[in-house]
Amino acid sequence: VSQVGGSSERVADLDETELIARFAPLLPFGDRTQIGPGDDAAVLAAPDARVVVTTDLLVEGHHFRRDWGSAIDVGRRAAAQNLADVAAMGASATGLVVGLVLPPQTEVAWVLGLAEGLAAGCGPHVGVVGGDLSAGESLVVAVTALGDLGGRRPVLRSGARPSDVVAHSGRLGWAAAGLAALEAGRAAEVGEVVGAFLRPEPPLADGPAAADAGATALLDVSDGLLRDAGRLAAASGVVIDLTAATLVDATLAAAAATLGADPLALALTGGEDHGLLATFPPELRLPGGFRPIGRVLEAAAGTRVTVDGAPPAVAARGWDHFRA
Amino acid sequence: VSQVGGSSERVADLDETELIARFAPLLPFGDRTQIGPGDDAAVLAAPDARVVVTTDLLVEGHHFRRDWGSAIDVGRRAAAQNLADVAAMGASATGLVVGLVLPPQTEVAWVLGLAEGLAAGCGPHVGVVGGDLSAGESLVVAVTALGDLGGRRPVLRSGARPSDVVAHSGRLGWAAAGLAALEAGRAAEVGEVVGAFLRPEPPLADGPAAADAGATALLDVSDGLLRDAGRLAAASGVVIDLTAATLVDATLAAAAATLGADPLALALTGGEDHGLLATFPPELRLPGGFRPIGRVLEAAAGTRVTVDGAPPAVAARGWDHFRA
Repeated sequence: VSQVGGSSERVADLDETELIARFAPLLPFGDRTQIGPGDDAAVLAAPDARVVVTTDLLVEGHHFRRDWGSAIDVGRRAAAQNLADVAAMGASATGLVVGLVLPPQTEVAWVLGLAEGLAAGCGPHVGVVGGDLSAGESLVVAVTALGDLGGRRPVLRSGARPSDVVAHSGRLGWAAAGLAALEAGRAAEVGEVVGAFLRPEPPLADGPAAADAGATALLDVSDGLLRDAGRLAAASGVVIDLTAATLVDATLAAAAATLGADPLALALTGGEDHGLLATFPPELRLPGGFRPIGRVLEAAAGTRVTVDGAPPAVAARGWDHFRA
Repeated sequence: VSQVGGSSERVADLDETELIARFAPLLPFGDRTQIGPGDDAAVLAAPDARVVVTTDLLVEGHHFRRDWGSAIDVGRRAAAQNLADVAAMGASATGLVVGLVLPPQTEVAWVLGLAEGLAAGCGPHVGVVGGDLSAGESLVVAVTALGDLGGRRPVLRSGARPSDVVAHSGRLGWAAAGLAALEAGRAAEVGEVVGAFLRPEPPLADGPAAADAGATALLDVSDGLLRDAGRLAAASGVVIDLTAATLVDATLAAAAATLGADPLALALTGGEDHGLLATFPPELRLPGGFRPIGRVLEAAAGTRVTVDGAPPAVAARGWDHFRA
């Protein structure tokens, strides 16, 4: 017997067609969408004649907990982390597709909230153009994002050159502080950084802006600054020297003080903020929200990232999903 | 303590970077790949200036069981079902991205087999250009496929017109017979159809061929012929009349006899074969592997699909992932 319409309505009470019929209208169509959801595949305009594509998973219990935030937050975050990867190539997002694995007891209201969050994360111009649903034991949100380079060269991780300025746009360490507070049951004490974890706001426009300004390398900081700067350094064959005094802002300092945490360690190792890390030739004026946080140095054996010229005092672990 | 190199090596014994370093080299780069895996996103050529995109999930316990077939089979199937959706628009696939949710106790050998299967399913020209890995409670393979229309108009579900020929390319009912045999523990008795379930072979080239020949509507048959023909009929505002005598081939008839099943019911309701259902103007010569299986009729209230002019004797349920 179905319980239709009540707040306790579950995914198992609907068939797939009914669920899609309620989910799909909440999603944006997108400016570049020629054929939207409902056929075997969607068709998006790719005016640049190249397409940027990236995919990212959110798994319940690993990337989110339903009791930490709303379904809207999870949807926003699923969109944001993929859109940040598109921006980090110097491209503008054009569309998303979404695979959802839903335990049958998932509340329908939660799934509709997720759709609202995806829509909020995409904004009015990026379409959610397709998807797939399946039952499963745990909740998984699998998003793939497409983007258009608009004639720009893609900005890779491998182009940084000695004497380039290292710059960052976005938040550093906020999400990690927020996650630490959630895990400690102290979210109410540091609300702003908890919001930053639940609702990352990548500086999406700064990706194409960095490309236009002449960025030599560009990367989304999703796994922690040390780890992601290390990737950029390795790909470019250089050393990245970070300036400690530039990494901790007032919000992070206050949250860290409340939590008794080391703010510099949070800024260096905290993931999930989805800021953009770029390198620029030294003579350039930094575009958008980019602020200088260091300098590119010549390669040195065994060294990828230094802080004020010395090996960092914290380990560059960042996120690893398989090891405990 | 890691168990490195042995047959019992598990995902939890490696970190994400190590696992990717072993997985990625097994995957095809692709003819259209400009920037492959390893940066924030991949870049694929989209010479048509439009891109076709579709996504499909395989969830362990719902779409596959590890004791039914090899990891290679699962990889091939994950690729095949997505490539079939691209073909069903009249497009040629250019690349895939893959999200993998892996329980930490998954054998590394299984994951590498999955990569081999993805490579086999893609062939040498379609790249696997990106992905994401996460730990999770159950195994999920989330594939997104991109394709290029090569100047063709996309062939939708909505273009069928009365008097068109209904045609099908590929297998009908084989996968359902194979699945029934696996569930009954009788796979050894009907090997060929079990292989068809584990290793679908969609007639990918027949998608663009149908578009070039002037197909008025085109659809991947993944959820059963009655259900998918019903979708085509609904989208086009017509009735599809199927000819029963054309639907059961010798392989299906033999397997159904062995299993004591109704072959016509398997052909009408069995999913997962990923054949292509098309409609063509009556004067056209059918391209590729298409065979006539029915006729498009004028819309009739309350009717979408008939068999030999009458309502089908079996229900058009097909697959539904949420209801028991």
